[in-house]
Amino acid sequence: MKMNKPYYAVIFTSTKTEEDHGYAEMAQRMEALASRQKGFLGVESAREEIGITVSYWESLDAIAQWKNHTDHLFAQQKGINDWYSWYKVRICLVEREYDFFK
Amino acid sequence: MKMNKPYYAVIFTSTKTEEDHGYAEMAQRMEALASRQKGFLGVESAREEIGITVSYWESLDAIAQWKNHTDHLFAQQKGINDWYSWYKVRICLVEREYDFFK
Repeated sequence: MKMNKPYYAVIFTSTKTEEDHGYAEMAQRMEALASRQKGFLGVESAREEIGITVSYWESLDAIAQWKNHTDHLFAQQKGINDWYSWYKVRICLVEREYDFFK
Repeated sequence: MKMNKPYYAVIFTSTKTEEDHGYAEMAQRMEALASRQKGFLGVESAREEIGITVSYWESLDAIAQWKNHTDHLFAQQKGINDWYSWYKVRICLVEREYDFFK
């Protein structure tokens, strides 16, 4: 994950409906598509009671372009109609970071 | 979750070792303890291949105080010694947010 500062994190938290048809395929397609967008830096995802997906971007402009990508708009609409009972998006500036490796 | 802007998100991503002894209990204790700290706004968590925990705070000062809380320092050391093979912490300013409810 290339991380030249400053960069942005988009925190997407959600709860799903019972409706699961096509969800995993779409999630996979969107991740693949996102990773080919200009300014994309990486994505991390996990779901238990709630789902958390954090994607990382070089700029607010890259985030806006991905939000308005035609195929992504279609997926967002499917998400609202079928898959999510709730979601929240937070666009954040990463100010500081540190890590640990064993 | 009280969210008077501006506020901060701490994104904690991790992969665990095979060592699981005491982990769930400690995670639960730390969440309970964090939620009683000054400036704490909320926390969300999910783990599959990787774990993602995002906690929300009123200020950088509140984040620093929680990082240096004695019991939390002990838990962090246990995490480094036993539970995590890798982790990354990102401290982020939440610049924008929107949500959807069905």
